[in-house]
Amino acid sequence: MEILSSLDDLAKVVRELKRANKSIGVVPTMGALHEGHLSLVRQSLVQSDETIVTIFVNPSQFAPSEDLDRYPQSLEADIAGLQSAGVQYVFAPSREEVYPENYSTSVVPPLVARRWEGEFRPTHFAGVATVVLKLLNMTRADRVFLGQKDFQQARVIEQMVADLNVATEVCICPIVRADDGLALSSRNVYLSSEQRTIALSLNQTLDHVERQIQAGQRDGFEVITEMRQMLIDAGVERIDYATVAHPKTLETADPIELPVVALIAAYVGETRLIDNRLLE
Amino acid sequence: MEILSSLDDLAKVVRELKRANKSIGVVPTMGALHEGHLSLVRQSLVQSDETIVTIFVNPSQFAPSEDLDRYPQSLEADIAGLQSAGVQYVFAPSREEVYPENYSTSVVPPLVARRWEGEFRPTHFAGVATVVLKLLNMTRADRVFLGQKDFQQARVIEQMVADLNVATEVCICPIVRADDGLALSSRNVYLSSEQRTIALSLNQTLDHVERQIQAGQRDGFEVITEMRQMLIDAGVERIDYATVAHPKTLETADPIELPVVALIAAYVGETRLIDNRLLE
Repeated sequence: MEILSSLDDLAKVVRELKRANKSIGVVPTMGALHEGHLSLVRQSLVQSDETIVTIFVNPSQFAPSEDLDRYPQSLEADIAGLQSAGVQYVFAPSREEVYPENYSTSVVPPLVARRWEGEFRPTHFAGVATVVLKLLNMTRADRVFLGQKDFQQARVIEQMVADLNVATEVCICPIVRADDGLALSSRNVYLSSEQRTIALSLNQTLDHVERQIQAGQRDGFEVITEMRQMLIDAGVERIDYATVAHPKTLETADPIELPVVALIAAYVGETRLIDNRLLE
Repeated sequence: MEILSSLDDLAKVVRELKRANKSIGVVPTMGALHEGHLSLVRQSLVQSDETIVTIFVNPSQFAPSEDLDRYPQSLEADIAGLQSAGVQYVFAPSREEVYPENYSTSVVPPLVARRWEGEFRPTHFAGVATVVLKLLNMTRADRVFLGQKDFQQARVIEQMVADLNVATEVCICPIVRADDGLALSSRNVYLSSEQRTIALSLNQTLDHVERQIQAGQRDGFEVITEMRQMLIDAGVERIDYATVAHPKTLETADPIELPVVALIAAYVGETRLIDNRLLE
């Protein structure tokens, strides 16, 4: 496995892969890798000739109040895990490499960025869209592998790639959960064991929504009200949103018509967690 | 020569060229081709295995008050000219192909877009940057050929390509002038013969600036004052800007230190003309 940190070294590798007509799969990450990331990596290894995993904690997608400075880092363990998974290339650039001093172009993300996360983290998706576009361009990815865990993020990137005619196929892979049902997230390490029990209510609420809708419930307002109540009863401190929405437009689905996605963002203690369930 | 109008057909061609390891040169145009465009085409033909000329009058770079609806069009003559030049591919998409209904992502152009043209055409460079990024992605250009005539536009694209890590080399080609010295522009057809005489004052003013600076003039304010005076004396109706600036940052150069670029945008009758001179 080759570990690259400069744009020049990456460009050299990409040029040679392209010359040899190898297909390139890219898994963009912020490090602190867990089984969720590794499932994307394995999918890329199956679908691509060569896989590049990028590790970059992107400052521009964090608001000043957010956890950029304490975001979990585990570069050595990440590299070891990617090595045993059989990844060919890791690209772990410095901030200066990604954002040189005179840098000033950015992306206005598509409309689908405005709801939900966009309301609570207003600058977040501009940062995400810009860095992902840059990473896709740097790696000239034939395919990019994203987790459904960040449902809206995947939609934003999918729409951006379509709107800007980026020659990359967006592959969205299923959520990976711990045995207790908690969706894997690098931020789960912030949770105490009591908080983890409370955090399970996100997945339990999504299970409930799934059962309700499968049983024929079509009243979006009623489903949303129950979602909020279940989360509060479980001890969630604050709900940013809990909703059922159309999976393409992300507009609230009321009445509910399949397909829908149930989306939750909520705080357990200081830790903001998100989870979702796609019902087709 | 193949004429393509759909993204699918273009993608098929590009995929095959890439598979055959052909280098792709792209000349983005709005049609109404003249010798200036053809000089870019010839440069692309020399430097690239295959050349794609795009013809698309991009609505998003025109303000409502501007000349989108009467912008000169000459598709048949354009195609004939490109054919005799030896171009391999023309891509002439419809508006719907470039901007489908649910399209909503765009580019915030780099800071260098804010001065000069950016002050008088505030939405112009966002439209230019977005469509050029789209065209570069559609064609997966190895090189893009731009005219120095639109000096700031070339700088905006060059900086965007660097900032977003687009894998395209930006090649900027010299201004082509008519025998009387007028810089070639599709908008020159708007000029009456009296107006054309007035329009020559742009190039004459740039000649004067060049002589002054070569003679040692370093007072930017004095040069700018003379530029304005020469243009007004010649009968120019309105000057948007006439300045000397640093060719990278486009900030006003006072005192003048080489390299500098002298930039003019001015109206002759209803017709807005631009011209520039790079002094190194």
